[in-house]
Amino acid sequence: MAIKGDLAMSAPELNAFLDSVFPQVRGEFLIEDLAPGEVTMRLAVRERHLRPGGTVSGPAMFSLADVAVYALVLSMVGPKALAVTTNASLDFMRKPAADADLIATGRLLKLGKLLAVGDVLLHSEGMADPVARASMTYAIPPS
Amino acid sequence: MAIKGDLAMSAPELNAFLDSVFPQVRGEFLIEDLAPGEVTMRLAVRERHLRPGGTVSGPAMFSLADVAVYALVLSMVGPKALAVTTNASLDFMRKPAADADLIATGRLLKLGKLLAVGDVLLHSEGMADPVARASMTYAIPPS
Amino acid sequence: MAIKGDLAMSAPELNAFLDSVFPQVRGEFLIEDLAPGEVTMRLAVRERHLRPGGTVSGPAMFSLADVAVYALVLSMVGPKALAVTTNASLDFMRKPAADADLIATGRLLKLGKLLAVGDVLLHSEGMADPVARASMTYAIPPS
Amino acid sequence: MAIKGDLAMSAPELNAFLDSVFPQVRGEFLIEDLAPGEVTMRLAVRERHLRPGGTVSGPAMFSLADVAVYALVLSMVGPKALAVTTNASLDFMRKPAADADLIATGRLLKLGKLLAVGDVLLHSEGMADPVARASMTYAIPPS
Repeated sequence: MAIKGDLAMSAPELNAFLDSVFPQVRGEFLIEDLAPGEVTMRLAVRERHLRPGGTVSGPAMFSLADVAVYALVLSMVGPKALAVTTNASLDFMRKPAADADLIATGRLLKLGKLLAVGDVLLHSEGMADPVARASMTYAIPPS
Repeated sequence: MAIKGDLAMSAPELNAFLDSVFPQVRGEFLIEDLAPGEVTMRLAVRERHLRPGGTVSGPAMFSLADVAVYALVLSMVGPKALAVTTNASLDFMRKPAADADLIATGRLLKLGKLLAVGDVLLHSEGMADPVARASMTYAIPPS
Repeated sequence: MAIKGDLAMSAPELNAFLDSVFPQVRGEFLIEDLAPGEVTMRLAVRERHLRPGGTVSGPAMFSLADVAVYALVLSMVGPKALAVTTNASLDFMRKPAADADLIATGRLLKLGKLLAVGDVLLHSEGMADPVARASMTYAIPPS
Repeated sequence: MAIKGDLAMSAPELNAFLDSVFPQVRGEFLIEDLAPGEVTMRLAVRERHLRPGGTVSGPAMFSLADVAVYALVLSMVGPKALAVTTNASLDFMRKPAADADLIATGRLLKLGKLLAVGDVLLHSEGMADPVARASMTYAIPPS
């Protein structure tokens, strides 16, 4: 059901690009699998992503969903660092495990000239049920 | 990735229940396929669902997504007419065809004691790309 | 906090325009008050807006919020019938009264070249607490 | 239009409570003004909140909106650390200034036994137009 087409960037190219534009989180967000319109991304959960109560914070989940859709968009349109999130909607459904990485599985549902839409499920690695869902809209700068 | 478990209501039972609680739209919303945590529902598009410009109206899309998640919830918890939508988030991505039915494919992502969350893709029948996505939260009345 | 500027259309002009583009709901949605970036709109609640249980339906609330933001956008950019909703987010917080009109108070938060964003509170007339809140994004067609 | 009632916690009590439950961000989020159902909160923008391009990151804006509604809820129900966000919806409308603090103005729209809903506007200090809007739902643990 996701967007089809040719990849403009490979997973290694995207990982390198993300590290270059977000140097402060280098190595935290890692694309594990990439196909046209589909991505699997890992957040290496560290101390700074945790919240008291032994769980992963909301902002960390937001970030992972946001970066996953950003990667989906760039994988199709190439390295446009200036694509910006215009809308985000998230449902937090279960408590993520504090001692497991977070895995995002995202799909690109629309890739227009101006707007792209993707949605994401987040899982704590090893748990069957998703901890959160998110949908994100990106505005794509003109070429 | 959807919720597993046993169905509390079958598709024919749910169709009959929906017709009884929403008599004013009898026959418009039809469950075509139902499994634990998954539903396919058809909106028989009629004149009153159309919007000038030759497309299906936003409220008609909202209704279909809303009823699809309602059906997902009831299929697991039984006929609780008083389950109510507390949150809805929708992205309208493409123009639906005016001369095709709308097909919703929904999945139940969480079924808690108090809250249930589902998401839905809407397609104009015969079109590959989704016209809209939606996520809905329902509050479930105590037994 | 709402957008400032000059009105491109007056409340009577907008009411006439809405009636012309949505003839099937003529007279249901009425702008009662309009200023740059701010609108008050009434939904004359009728039998077809009700839901079993003695309340106003979700789709009717969606429609009112959607039309209110549409009116806010058109009031600033003029009669562009083709402005389309791209995102909607709603929280349904209380049960609307079945025997009262619904009143929307909306404000325009952004009016860009491509996207406009507004939010809305819905009240049952005479009730102090809002029954729902909504935010809507519209894509504006190029001139 | 916000919830009325008596404050269960004062602004200094809430600031102390936030520092105790979120020690890793001590001093970043500061309640500047608090009344029943209304809050003004400052995010002291630091290097780690910035994103390349000279602006404040999405996760930092998410955090501020989330903490502002958390504070609104706790101000009415007392220090229930376990209140959790169940839904978040955000529109990012303008680029925040990198060299200004972010100011959130939030209001509590619903305070039920189980769910609370608030919405927030975010401004870069000194800018008239909001940079983002957000709505948040919190689930409140039983007493």
